Amino acid sequence: MSAKRFDVLGIGNAIVDVIATTDDAFLLSQNLNKGSMALIDEARSHELYKAMGPGTVISGGSAANTIAGIASFGLSAAFIGKVKADESGAAFAHDIRAMKIHFETPQASDGPSTARCLVLVTADGERTMNTYLGACQNLTPADVDEDAVKAADITYLEGYLWDPPEAKKAFTKAAAIAHAAGKQVALTLSDSFCVDRYRGEFLELMRSKTVDIVFANQHELRSLYETSDFDSAVAAIRQEGVLAAVTRSELGSLVVTRGETHAVPACPIERLVDTTGAGDLYAAGFLSGLARGASLSDCARLGAIAAAEVIQHYGARPVASLADLASENGLAL
Amino acid sequence: MSAKRFDVLGIGNAIVDVIATTDDAFLLSQNLNKGSMALIDEARSHELYKAMGPGTVISGGSAANTIAGIASFGLSAAFIGKVKADESGAAFAHDIRAMKIHFETPQASDGPSTARCLVLVTADGERTMNTYLGACQNLTPADVDEDAVKAADITYLEGYLWDPPEAKKAFTKAAAIAHAAGKQVALTLSDSFCVDRYRGEFLELMRSKTVDIVFANQHELRSLYETSDFDSAVAAIRQEGVLAAVTRSELGSLVVTRGETHAVPACPIERLVDTTGAGDLYAAGFLSGLARGASLSDCARLGAIAAAEVIQHYGARPVASLADLASENGLAL
Repeated sequence: MSAKRFDVLGIGNAIVDVIATTDDAFLLSQNLNKGSMALIDEARSHELYKAMGPGTVISGGSAANTIAGIASFGLSAAFIGKVKADESGAAFAHDIRAMKIHFETPQASDGPSTARCLVLVTADGERTMNTYLGACQNLTPADVDEDAVKAADITYLEGYLWDPPEAKKAFTKAAAIAHAAGKQVALTLSDSFCVDRYRGEFLELMRSKTVDIVFANQHELRSLYETSDFDSAVAAIRQEGVLAAVTRSELGSLVVTRGETHAVPACPIERLVDTTGAGDLYAAGFLSGLARGASLSDCARLGAIAAAEVIQHYGARPVASLADLASENGLAL
Repeated sequence: MSAKRFDVLGIGNAIVDVIATTDDAFLLSQNLNKGSMALIDEARSHELYKAMGPGTVISGGSAANTIAGIASFGLSAAFIGKVKADESGAAFAHDIRAMKIHFETPQASDGPSTARCLVLVTADGERTMNTYLGACQNLTPADVDEDAVKAADITYLEGYLWDPPEAKKAFTKAAAIAHAAGKQVALTLSDSFCVDRYRGEFLELMRSKTVDIVFANQHELRSLYETSDFDSAVAAIRQEGVLAAVTRSELGSLVVTRGETHAVPACPIERLVDTTGAGDLYAAGFLSGLARGASLSDCARLGAIAAAEVIQHYGARPVASLADLASENGLAL
């Protein structure tokens, strides 16, 4: 039950990140695919944790990071995701509520523990993620709070929701509620391997008009259309009739609709520390702009500002006030 | 049972830090004494956690941070401290073992949860700490591994051990074992309020020759001798017949024995982020030098290097390799 309205509601895997620095030799020795996200089971999670260095624990989860960014821009936000009633679950809930984000999804009292992602960051700032989904596997359509979805201008969903078996039903339920209420639905493709697992379904989400806005990085977009040519992939998504925001790391981003294209540069940074959350925070800036009626190129600029903040420190949630950064850049929301 | 030898063994409260940024208004509203450590009960810990912002969770504990620093200098180290077999306890044990530190203190299977310290960091880099001792209250003399103490050149103990009721017995047992084996015993005074609580006992530890080496910052030293005059306090500790290392933040440190005085400047830093662990890491550098036979002024320089590293990022444990930093400063150990 939510009497208030939200600029954006996110639905995603509720994950706690354990971040450790490492080197390429360790990634190699553990057969890890640098820069990507791998799903691992509980036993492998324990094994990899034991082998890795001292960890810093920070709340994460792709859509949850985006929602945290939106709250940092000063917008009203809500999140739906499943944790267990354990220490990590309590930390996740505390952190998201401490940002004034509406979060009332019932915690699991038994079953698998709260999801954790072992994030290995190399000296080049690249992150390699290993996710044990744990309690996220118990997110079901019953967890979708209809009133909260109806109360949100945009409902934002992560592609990673295709991994836990019941979560995609929660996704489609939320999209239906949002559209019935005349609201918009956004999707991030999440990861190129995730696209590889669910390519057909992701394409169908666009073609069936289940989603209106799509976020992708260049690797995910090329994977979606199974092409090594970026321009062909851009031409392909232009035909889907969605609003697409495509990120290209230091090359900036491209906003593509059937009739428009806006190329916006990346924000300069002093030092790349940890790319974790770059895409999540780009989406936070873009959606914040969109919810407040900014132009598409200003939406992309807000995305670039938020992404630049998060890659200059460890962890995938903003440390600085994104509202202040937006103001300093003449883009006050 | 430890067949190996250790440069330094530390005994202290095994604590997990939850770090959040805040402002002076929040400290005021919560009646917190900026810059100091307050002991809080479980109910207050929950209340304060609920009120504070999103947290980053990193292993801490004063002596444990020092031991982590000593391991980062490349020395062999061991730690004794009590956690519970819960998520935080598992993280503490993982983090310390991931640094190749010998840590075999049995975990409590019931009773209070693993200790946590709510660390509030203001924009000036100052930290205000609120510690719930939890499982640390169950550290007893039985946890002191005799073989490990005998195997260590220096046994390092934190003044905070005077807070949990049984831990001081563990402290004196360890000191007796170390001295019987011809080894040295070091103490940090920990915090000026801690000194205020146990002034007479701390003075007696020096006068009874229970400790050979004492670490204090200027506030703790003045509190010990109940004087507002730093020079009088230095003159007083000189008469105790111990080796004293006194830190003065950006003014550097002073090494004082009955016959010698060495003043060593602080290391220049680019940006003060979080003073948490400054004293702990100074002790790490100093003890690493001492264990390897460095001159007293080089011991102080190594302390300054380690302290400078830790105050330039959040968290009280080193991120960079202190062995590398020592080498770069011509002080390879």
